[in-house]
Amino acid sequence: MPKTVRFHNLGGPEVLSLDEVDVPLPGKGEVRIRTRALGLNRAEIMFRTGNYVVEPVFPQALGYEAAGTVEAVGAEVSGLTVGDAVSVVPAFAMTEYALHGELVLAPAHAVVKHPEQLTWEEAAGVWMPFITAYGGLIDLAGLSAGDTVVIPAASSSVGLAAIQIANMIGAKPVALTRTSSKRQQLIDAGAAAVIATEEEHVVERLDQITDGAGVQVIFDPVAGPLLPRLIDAASTAATVVIYGALSTDDTALPVLAVLGKHITIRGYELFEVTTDPERLRGAVAFVRDGLNSGALKPTVDKVFEMENIAEAYQYLESNGQIGKVVVSVPQNR
Amino acid sequence: MPKTVRFHNLGGPEVLSLDEVDVPLPGKGEVRIRTRALGLNRAEIMFRTGNYVVEPVFPQALGYEAAGTVEAVGAEVSGLTVGDAVSVVPAFAMTEYALHGELVLAPAHAVVKHPEQLTWEEAAGVWMPFITAYGGLIDLAGLSAGDTVVIPAASSSVGLAAIQIANMIGAKPVALTRTSSKRQQLIDAGAAAVIATEEEHVVERLDQITDGAGVQVIFDPVAGPLLPRLIDAASTAATVVIYGALSTDDTALPVLAVLGKHITIRGYELFEVTTDPERLRGAVAFVRDGLNSGALKPTVDKVFEMENIAEAYQYLESNGQIGKVVVSVPQNR
Repeated sequence: MPKTVRFHNLGGPEVLSLDEVDVPLPGKGEVRIRTRALGLNRAEIMFRTGNYVVEPVFPQALGYEAAGTVEAVGAEVSGLTVGDAVSVVPAFAMTEYALHGELVLAPAHAVVKHPEQLTWEEAAGVWMPFITAYGGLIDLAGLSAGDTVVIPAASSSVGLAAIQIANMIGAKPVALTRTSSKRQQLIDAGAAAVIATEEEHVVERLDQITDGAGVQVIFDPVAGPLLPRLIDAASTAATVVIYGALSTDDTALPVLAVLGKHITIRGYELFEVTTDPERLRGAVAFVRDGLNSGALKPTVDKVFEMENIAEAYQYLESNGQIGKVVVSVPQNR
Repeated sequence: MPKTVRFHNLGGPEVLSLDEVDVPLPGKGEVRIRTRALGLNRAEIMFRTGNYVVEPVFPQALGYEAAGTVEAVGAEVSGLTVGDAVSVVPAFAMTEYALHGELVLAPAHAVVKHPEQLTWEEAAGVWMPFITAYGGLIDLAGLSAGDTVVIPAASSSVGLAAIQIANMIGAKPVALTRTSSKRQQLIDAGAAAVIATEEEHVVERLDQITDGAGVQVIFDPVAGPLLPRLIDAASTAATVVIYGALSTDDTALPVLAVLGKHITIRGYELFEVTTDPERLRGAVAFVRDGLNSGALKPTVDKVFEMENIAEAYQYLESNGQIGKVVVSVPQNR
């Protein structure tokens, strides 16, 4: 029987096991995919540790991202055929569909054709970061050529995607990272400037970088005490897109700056885009254009074997990576 | 010589004096107005006490609002003629134009025809509250029929205007006020419900009022500790328009709620609308429609004589009023 990654109780990566599970034929609106590679996400860690928006039901499978080939097609599915190379966009709850396994069900609305210039490992982690960044920067904030965008946690897969998307449209990406250790890698990844937030005066540096004009967009998965300082460095009519809450500290709302500069602050989740067919189409088309032109390219930090899935999550949780952590699925069956 | 309200140093209402000042002929793009009534605003208090976005230059005139008749027309002004009954929309800095005087200059782009159903006293205070409320509720937040809007400081002139605009478009205005003392007056003014924030559990009441659906729009000039509680009571995709910072306490940004509910928070000032000719036209047309249909009607709390201007501001600063404080200008010259 095919192996599925599951956990039988909350906990660290060690609770993950490879269980042999029977996978039913795809139902209405579903396809069954033989996977080649799996993308790992922070959301899965939160789910596994009981800190996510939905609660696991044991034994619980997990996983938002995978790439592979369609192995069976359910009723009322159009545009997908057995044998198609595909990847999956996160557009469902992990209690409904879970993609970390050798053979998995996925809702057809979340399945897109494999971008041909990518390896399986790249495709398994392309949609979450690039659609998250596209949705925040382009769809919501309207980032434009000539704008400056500030990107905290820039070495995450979404941060790197945001750097590439900013460059693709002629905006200026400023990468924020805690210490200088990843500075050169972020410059190499396309950052116009890098600010080490624990070592430099963030507002002064942003003032210099923008010649005093301030930044037009802040794309932040952290919040906490840094956010009001970033708003101090914002231009009139700037947009702050918050897409995570990595900081465990409180966040102050700087009311006078928000008022005086007509700032917009927007809480944002990927699912806003991926569960809306029209917005999803726009997002997928944008990312494909970027992949075709070479402006966008997934950053895979490290590939693990499926049997080492716990080790892969351990690595992701250590925050040492730059880009995506991916798992390769053995094909010798 | 005509009298102009001025102050020669920062301070309380007592620093205001009626100075005889020569008013030049209107220059290019200006008109000169013989005033009939003046509208009083909190912004003038902040300006007089040195707490405003621009600093006074002594002796400093002041005043954003007036109604009267055009007495002289400068070059390159179209659509305005001597004798026209007009009122003025705040669309300039008080260091450029100041309307509290018997004879005042105003920029033609800020001068609109007197709404014929209004008295001079009503017209002197109609634009600031109704355009502020229109801009926040309709232009920015997209308030729609069936939505619930929460209105802190509801007995202010902007709060009352927001209640009327909500009713005009079929939305449900919930008035917030600190104690029960103004409850009946707010019901009479059109509030669908009134919450006394110092006496009631605000989130529970909003849950009841919306049958658990939450509120779609929060239109807040206060911020401070109440704002995160209001966001707790917001629906998915709710919009918070902050148009003032009356609270002297810090305001926390409830990041998880903002994220999970895709909340938009927007800092907003009237001038965003009034200095954009197209948005201003839309705003004035909307308010005129409402005045014509009877859906909108200015609320004048009290009219003072011009010689008692200091007393009028003292009254405004006491926060006892419901609606607008207006000054009548003597015509026996």
